[in-house]
Amino acid sequence: MSKEDIGITVSKEADFSEWYTQVVLKAKLADYAPVKGLIVLRPDGYSIWESLRNTFDEKFFKKGIRNGFLPILIPESLLGKEQKHFAGFNPEVFWVTHSGENEIGDRLALRPTSETLAYTMYSKWIQSWRDLPLKINFWNTALRAEIKATKPFLRTSEFLWQEGHTVHAIKEEAEKEVIEILEIYKNTVQDELAIPVVTGKKSEKEKFVGAVYTTTMESIMPDGKALQMGTSHFLGQNFSIPFEVKFSDKDNVEQFAWQTSWGVSWRLIGAMIMVHGDDKGLVLPPKVAPIQVVIVPIYKSDDAKNVIFPKLNEIRQQLESKKIRVHVDDRNELTPGYKFNDWELKGIPLRIEIGPKDIEKQQIVLAKRYNREKISIGFNEIEKISTILDEIQKDMLEIAKVKAKQNTINISEYSEFKSKIGKGGFFNAYWCGKTECEEKIKEETGADIRVIPFGSENTNGKCIYCNEQSKETPIFARGY
Amino acid sequence: MSKEDIGITVSKEADFSEWYTQVVLKAKLADYAPVKGLIVLRPDGYSIWESLRNTFDEKFFKKGIRNGFLPILIPESLLGKEQKHFAGFNPEVFWVTHSGENEIGDRLALRPTSETLAYTMYSKWIQSWRDLPLKINFWNTALRAEIKATKPFLRTSEFLWQEGHTVHAIKEEAEKEVIEILEIYKNTVQDELAIPVVTGKKSEKEKFVGAVYTTTMESIMPDGKALQMGTSHFLGQNFSIPFEVKFSDKDNVEQFAWQTSWGVSWRLIGAMIMVHGDDKGLVLPPKVAPIQVVIVPIYKSDDAKNVIFPKLNEIRQQLESKKIRVHVDDRNELTPGYKFNDWELKGIPLRIEIGPKDIEKQQIVLAKRYNREKISIGFNEIEKISTILDEIQKDMLEIAKVKAKQNTINISEYSEFKSKIGKGGFFNAYWCGKTECEEKIKEETGADIRVIPFGSENTNGKCIYCNEQSKETPIFARGY
Ligand SMILES: [Zn+2]
Ligand SMILES: [Zn+2]
Repeated sequence: MSKEDIGITVSKEADFSEWYTQVVLKAKLADYAPVKGLIVLRPDGYSIWESLRNTFDEKFFKKGIRNGFLPILIPESLLGKEQKHFAGFNPEVFWVTHSGENEIGDRLALRPTSETLAYTMYSKWIQSWRDLPLKINFWNTALRAEIKATKPFLRTSEFLWQEGHTVHAIKEEAEKEVIEILEIYKNTVQDELAIPVVTGKKSEKEKFVGAVYTTTMESIMPDGKALQMGTSHFLGQNFSIPFEVKFSDKDNVEQFAWQTSWGVSWRLIGAMIMVHGDDKGLVLPPKVAPIQVVIVPIYKSDDAKNVIFPKLNEIRQQLESKKIRVHVDDRNELTPGYKFNDWELKGIPLRIEIGPKDIEKQQIVLAKRYNREKISIGFNEIEKISTILDEIQKDMLEIAKVKAKQNTINISEYSEFKSKIGKGGFFNAYWCGKTECEEKIKEETGADIRVIPFGSENTNGKCIYCNEQSKETPIFARGY
Repeated sequence: MSKEDIGITVSKEADFSEWYTQVVLKAKLADYAPVKGLIVLRPDGYSIWESLRNTFDEKFFKKGIRNGFLPILIPESLLGKEQKHFAGFNPEVFWVTHSGENEIGDRLALRPTSETLAYTMYSKWIQSWRDLPLKINFWNTALRAEIKATKPFLRTSEFLWQEGHTVHAIKEEAEKEVIEILEIYKNTVQDELAIPVVTGKKSEKEKFVGAVYTTTMESIMPDGKALQMGTSHFLGQNFSIPFEVKFSDKDNVEQFAWQTSWGVSWRLIGAMIMVHGDDKGLVLPPKVAPIQVVIVPIYKSDDAKNVIFPKLNEIRQQLESKKIRVHVDDRNELTPGYKFNDWELKGIPLRIEIGPKDIEKQQIVLAKRYNREKISIGFNEIEKISTILDEIQKDMLEIAKVKAKQNTINISEYSEFKSKIGKGGFFNAYWCGKTECEEKIKEETGADIRVIPFGSENTNGKCIYCNEQSKETPIFARGY
């Protein structure tokens, strides 16, 4: 393979979509499976998911949420129990009709989401107020047949996600849970993936089918399109009534419970790639990087090698003792230049270079991936590397925030809306609250309401479409 | 509910099968899903699986094995690429034939196992000897339509498992991997679940369809039936040839690679329940227990409660600081007796009782779940509890070893074999190595060769069936 074939061959600016696909494949995060719409995660891709899972698990556990397992098959009759919900998912359901040679009577859906199955179980498990709140999270996959072109992490027919399902005796407690989960989502995405998000509500039109309302976090991607990063739904009693999720309260009166559901998927990894990547490839935030520091020894002779490696191993041990994930690239047959490109493509946050001259000077060279800055530090300053990684993590978020801000515009004229929408961006615009205006805007511009940010109630402006009194200021954008 | 309804209503001795089901359901480990053959894992059940997963992950990682993700859908054409393999799984495959309203051309199998899919990917990823060894593990589920009655963890149509798939340049290296994985399985099952196992090879008849040979670990259950606890297969080049898993060696010559695959499933949890449980319910080994120590305060008045709780909280903190998983049962409306039964049913390894008299005596009462022994220790001896939990873990394994030994018999006469097989057990018996004898024995007694223990080659005896020269001494048993 030539050097070009190995590296990314298009710029992020010139062809964002092709750039994205190349980064995913060439950084070996994922690959296409033999079935259209499906992808395989290679270890470097899956480990990012594992890192997110561990962070979420820790935060969920502190809130009294525990994990469970649900099977992937849901009978058609059960999926149809909440009608709107079923109508929403039906066109994209994979159906199992046979086991071996035998036809199955009530055909089986591959889980598009698990509300119906989880709540069938919950209605058996919950009898009394003592059984509440019940909070279970499921790390599984969901399947929804995608007819559009596959895009790893963003548009696939099977995707990894977590879906949480909680049940409460008190309405307000359930609504509080919805918001607290959204907060966990927001903090985790910002702190771990260094991506800023906007949180708020979905419009009636865009809410989850079956929810009373949906809260969401949205991010703006470098191509100006919006990406839904996670949602947390207040289900009210919309499911507890048909699924009979009931409990006896303290006065022994039977009540229908209040419910929430919420989820994030591996599209978070897609967002991370898009937001931070550059023309050299992937750029990983240190917190989720499978390797945080790669050490590349630089030598031309065995003598030099023998001088370098004892010190190099010492540094490796120092870093490991600080719980830093280190890798030594000791491949003999490759040049340092090749190795630099390789690890840059893979987005490793920090590279240590160490050659005979560095040994003389009692120093190492550090190369930061995200801004490609190089600095030297002395052998006695190795412990600074923890701090440097933390700084990289913070800087990456700050840079992403600045870019997101640049891509967010206040728009007050519909003509301006239409002329600028082609370039993308988050558009803050007044809205009367009517679905009619929302649909017209979508029809004429391709933009929908991504999120009505918390605290964006507004009665001073006029709806961007119909000029009537504004109720709130949503963010409009074209989305993924 | 009456007390009887809550507790286990049959003895393990009298009706093992019913006892097992009651323990699973009443200890709230799992429940039946709406589709026949499928179960749901409740948090207490799933957390045992998570604990095993974490242990295996740590051990796999040290061996350079990393995790990945494979989709659940495999095209029929791909599954059929290795013929024997396909024939083995075909009768139990779930088939997806439609997505939404559309019929799918090449119908899709729900993964019964992932060799075919993994190796299709591997053949793309491996070009050179530098890409080897490639070692990836997948934590997922497998689906195999079960027609027999569902038995949670033991016989279900979808089950949680891990499947590891490695590729090597050198045959011997692959064979070494097979054995090292089996060792990890054995140590983990013994150390974490306190279950002794016998390791060795499967016979030709019982090996994995598509393998050159299969190594296995088997355990004897209290009802005398054998349970296969995990298998590790040497695949040779049986898959690398049809799937073209090839590499250029150091001399630039193209070679077919050598492969292994291996897996354990949630049936390990089933084994744990069967081996350790008793008439009061589940008995959990401390290492995998979601709660290791439950503290039950004993009081009749608020005054007493106010005396107990400060000390109780102090003890809780002391234990938590030692990373012990503690739970305080502060349910006000329930009696201590009810709570004792509840936690015994759930198998929590150690219970701390603390009442006003204990406060006076500066002591707490410890009740061990596995042998129901009670001891008192002083407030100044709390740190002993770590050691006590370790001892419980060891004792449980020792007891299980004694029972397994009692259930293992040397048999030299076929008449004795036939008369004793009804009572179950592991039968060590000479065998000539011919599948014919193996099949006859199975036909006439229901027992098959579970495992040919490593080092059991034997040329001094006569085959239990045909009286010809013995080649090895397998363990025969009826199995799950
Ligand atoms: Zn309007
Ligand atoms: Zn024979």
